Amino acid sequence: MSYNQKSYALGSVRSIIRETFEYGKIRASQIGADKVFDFSLGNPSVKPPKEVRQSIIKMLETYDETALHGYTSAQGDVGVRQVIADDIKSRFGVDMDKDFIYMTCGAAASLSICLNAVLNQGEECIVFAPFFTEYRVFVENAGGKLIVSTPEDNTFQIDINNFESLITPNTKAIILNSPNNPSGVVYTEDKIKALCKILNDKQKEFGHPIYLISDEPYRELVYGNVFVPYLMNYYDNTLVCYSFSKSLSLPGERIGYIAVCPKMQDAKSVYLAVCGAGRALGYVCAPSLFQRVVADCIGAKTDIEAYKINRDLIYNSLSDLGYQCVEPNGAFYLFVKSLEDDANAFCKRARDYELLLVPCDGFGTKGYVRISYCVSKSTIENSIPAFKKLIESYK
Amino acid sequence: MSYNQKSYALGSVRSIIRETFEYGKIRASQIGADKVFDFSLGNPSVKPPKEVRQSIIKMLETYDETALHGYTSAQGDVGVRQVIADDIKSRFGVDMDKDFIYMTCGAAASLSICLNAVLNQGEECIVFAPFFTEYRVFVENAGGKLIVSTPEDNTFQIDINNFESLITPNTKAIILNSPNNPSGVVYTEDKIKALCKILNDKQKEFGHPIYLISDEPYRELVYGNVFVPYLMNYYDNTLVCYSFSKSLSLPGERIGYIAVCPKMQDAKSVYLAVCGAGRALGYVCAPSLFQRVVADCIGAKTDIEAYKINRDLIYNSLSDLGYQCVEPNGAFYLFVKSLEDDANAFCKRARDYELLLVPCDGFGTKGYVRISYCVSKSTIENSIPAFKKLIESYK
Repeated sequence: MSYNQKSYALGSVRSIIRETFEYGKIRASQIGADKVFDFSLGNPSVKPPKEVRQSIIKMLETYDETALHGYTSAQGDVGVRQVIADDIKSRFGVDMDKDFIYMTCGAAASLSICLNAVLNQGEECIVFAPFFTEYRVFVENAGGKLIVSTPEDNTFQIDINNFESLITPNTKAIILNSPNNPSGVVYTEDKIKALCKILNDKQKEFGHPIYLISDEPYRELVYGNVFVPYLMNYYDNTLVCYSFSKSLSLPGERIGYIAVCPKMQDAKSVYLAVCGAGRALGYVCAPSLFQRVVADCIGAKTDIEAYKINRDLIYNSLSDLGYQCVEPNGAFYLFVKSLEDDANAFCKRARDYELLLVPCDGFGTKGYVRISYCVSKSTIENSIPAFKKLIESYK
Repeated sequence: MSYNQKSYALGSVRSIIRETFEYGKIRASQIGADKVFDFSLGNPSVKPPKEVRQSIIKMLETYDETALHGYTSAQGDVGVRQVIADDIKSRFGVDMDKDFIYMTCGAAASLSICLNAVLNQGEECIVFAPFFTEYRVFVENAGGKLIVSTPEDNTFQIDINNFESLITPNTKAIILNSPNNPSGVVYTEDKIKALCKILNDKQKEFGHPIYLISDEPYRELVYGNVFVPYLMNYYDNTLVCYSFSKSLSLPGERIGYIAVCPKMQDAKSVYLAVCGAGRALGYVCAPSLFQRVVADCIGAKTDIEAYKINRDLIYNSLSDLGYQCVEPNGAFYLFVKSLEDDANAFCKRARDYELLLVPCDGFGTKGYVRISYCVSKSTIENSIPAFKKLIESYK
């Protein structure tokens, strides 16, 4: 036997998002960056709030450097965890304690750790299409089996009947992502209530816990007065995976946390399983400077208004042109129906007009594309004539 | 089934190092920090070189913030990888390329990723006692089996005959850690040559690669003119796991890299397996600000002289008192023979004199303790009378 073939396979297949992004860079060098309309990546286009920079400088000026850059405890600095627990308490009314907070190297780490903490070999984890492609990788690496629940037509809300039909005695976890990547949909409180009722009934029926993992890097990115339910208030066996990547525009700094619901059955033991999973995967402590910075900036907000302007502009423009778009209440993605059955073929034709879109087959939904509108406003404005030509080419 | 019991077990057993450290904090609050001699943790006591702080400020002043804190490619920023490849080339004469460098969240991440990249279920990984306790966790999490090679008496160098006797057709990896935690020993070039010859012979005999994983966070911490062989120059199938934790005193920032030897059999495929393993474990990109900072500070050096003064002081003082110490050529640990067979009992008695030492049974060597001398010089000076009383208590 040679090296590990599963790892090789995961490393050698480039994601369609990355492939599109790399194509865009090459194309920009050929015809100029202003002529290419790259809507591929979910990389925040808005600067971090000014508090971040001020906080980094303050830390350098006030902290002893050895302590600032030194190890914190594996689960994170105790003062930082206290700030985060207090924040959850004051914002969502959950009786959170610092000893249920585990600081992580971002959302991917959080999910990977949670799944390794709760899943046993062969157990099932249900996700809702469309879903972030890496869920499959994390679930399978934790020894689990991914089960996909299909959404309601057009709205892309949870189809409660479909969800219920998928639960078996082997179901151990659910991953919920709202606001959703790639659809931009925020699941309604009614849907959340219905989902949690089923989970509570099924737990009782099967006599074992089913864990609800809430992946919420986009929590702060909602437009208008849309309400994003905090799942711990609806279901006790909830783990929240939070990341500051989007809320503070710090995706590269890899900083977030896992919060275990204090009302969870065996909450302390599950928290210890989180600690153990982090240890086994090689997560020792989250980056120490940015632990302090995010605690210091806990109330700071990124400029959501810029995203809202982009959202309105692209949603209205494409709808006016005749595209069928899902109403986006959150995140920075627009989910658009492909103009032909094969979304890959559609994205290929879009490239003829220098429009770089992501086909969503890999997200578990055929016939749709994702447009990341975390770009400059002028990119959107300048792309509209290209979108017009694209739809005309199908007439 | 409930949550994952293996993860729970890993999270609920506190390491003896952490336990000792926590005891020290409580004891300090009772009798005063200056009365407690805490030699438990391997946390650098020397400040980062001044270049680190200057570099952080420079990055904040010169970079666009969105780019500075944004995602790099999963394997790390291309410019950063180029700097590191050039550094390896110029220091060790290896024909390194940026496309064989993978930036990681520190040494634990590097090891975890490498083991998942090369091991298949049930394959064996040989480590050399005394060894860092977490090797067992990482190897077993990657599906492998840990095999422990016992060292030569007194010198704690590799016992080549013992090592050779442990290699089987099921051996897939070796982890080598020099300078060594917890012994402070640097393996000699003769030992390295003998080890690599055996590995080359065995690879030929079995017809499959055996990967040598060099865990070298302490590479820069050597005293006098001790030579630390760069393993890629002795063996093609080498992966180097490097961390800036000790060399730049940045343990909390979680920044390091994996370097795949360009002469490795199927080097490109193994590199892709590294990328895939990182992806599966949830490592998306290493912290972006500190990627830039370590590249910018690539030539900077921490104040090793402070550690050397500590080493000489504690080694000479304890030897003079009658303790049997292994000669420490690197890292910041002194490996001392316990004054009774049971190192745990010895450490317990040492606490009566406020000396906090770490018993090394968990490192695979019975009857020894580890003293981390990355403390202030005065801590060592003030501890000598306590060490004197401790040895007298055994007479």
